[in-house]
Amino acid sequence: MTGARADGATRGAGGRPARGRRAANVRADAQRNRAAILQATVDTLRKDPDASVAQIAAEAGVGRMTLYGHFPTRPELIEAALIDSLDRGDAVLRDVDLEGDAREAFSRLITVSWVLVDQSRALLAAAQKELPPGRIRELHEKAEATHRDLLERGQREGAFRTDLPVSWLLTTTHVVIHGAADEIAAGRLTSEDAPRFIDTTLQAAFANPAQT
Amino acid sequence: MTGARADGATRGAGGRPARGRRAANVRADAQRNRAAILQATVDTLRKDPDASVAQIAAEAGVGRMTLYGHFPTRPELIEAALIDSLDRGDAVLRDVDLEGDAREAFSRLITVSWVLVDQSRALLAAAQKELPPGRIRELHEKAEATHRDLLERGQREGAFRTDLPVSWLLTTTHVVIHGAADEIAAGRLTSEDAPRFIDTTLQAAFANPAQT
Repeated sequence: MTGARADGATRGAGGRPARGRRAANVRADAQRNRAAILQATVDTLRKDPDASVAQIAAEAGVGRMTLYGHFPTRPELIEAALIDSLDRGDAVLRDVDLEGDAREAFSRLITVSWVLVDQSRALLAAAQKELPPGRIRELHEKAEATHRDLLERGQREGAFRTDLPVSWLLTTTHVVIHGAADEIAAGRLTSEDAPRFIDTTLQAAFANPAQT
Repeated sequence: MTGARADGATRGAGGRPARGRRAANVRADAQRNRAAILQATVDTLRKDPDASVAQIAAEAGVGRMTLYGHFPTRPELIEAALIDSLDRGDAVLRDVDLEGDAREAFSRLITVSWVLVDQSRALLAAAQKELPPGRIRELHEKAEATHRDLLERGQREGAFRTDLPVSWLLTTTHVVIHGAADEIAAGRLTSEDAPRFIDTTLQAAFANPAQT
């Protein structure tokens, strides 16, 4: 089986160059469509959190059947858009300077995390309706690992309290940031106030009581 | 119209006593069924968060049609069970001693609030799937008012920080308590640890920095 497949692949790429090029074009088209659909999902949900799959296809400039070819159900589409958005977010988080004083580094990290959550608020709200909470938390794992590493260093260095486990500090970070996003959606909090409220709350909650 | 209704009511209660008694019996039956259905909703969801309406009717010892007569849809049933559970919770909260030192009173209040949330965890999880987050928060309004009054007194007396508005302190209280419930459901937190984690986190976050 493996030999036959390898053989076929060789022929496909080398022996029939025209068909190979056509296949590559089809793949490139499919990738462009996929990217356009995911971007359109974020844009359309921002304007209308209950946007239909048909509206998203229209915004992406593709037919509904093309969209369904990539994402057979609305939950699958929402999950793919969330994964895509989190992947971009992880790239942004990698650029945050996490060196130096742990408390200052944590402020930098949650400020950037907040911007990412704020930008994908509509997508997250849609995901909360379509996906189980456990799955949403799972998809945040990479972002959480960055927070976990920093909180652990801060505990070792005496900057953060050690009478609460890092897993709980992570939960608190997650619910406070996402709670702020819900409050903005409900009109009870402004985007201007949110970063200061989040930082003040988490820094006060996590500070090592022996150091204050 | 008002006159005619008053007249009819008088005749129903006084002029035809046998029919009046029958009607009262029917109403009493309906009330008993309603109470049994709401209790069965809480019990059944605790065993199986995705329990069907048929399972709940069986647990309540009523027919499915009787249940649908009271609650035409699953979301309506879940919302009614949540309102019922919150009403009982409000009665419990009224017994909490909120006098004296605001920080100590706040610890007593969130400890009892946590017990109430922990008891209705399965119902809340079902409500999160069936009802919009704004509606769930709305239903918590009475319980929130108790927290709000105490937080405002604590701010006036200098026990709690005033650089964050009470609305944000309430949001933080809500998301941390409910976040703990989700963590228990996910198996990352034990019921024994939860009250201390919640109290430690919120007291540290809300303390007036000038007083520590």
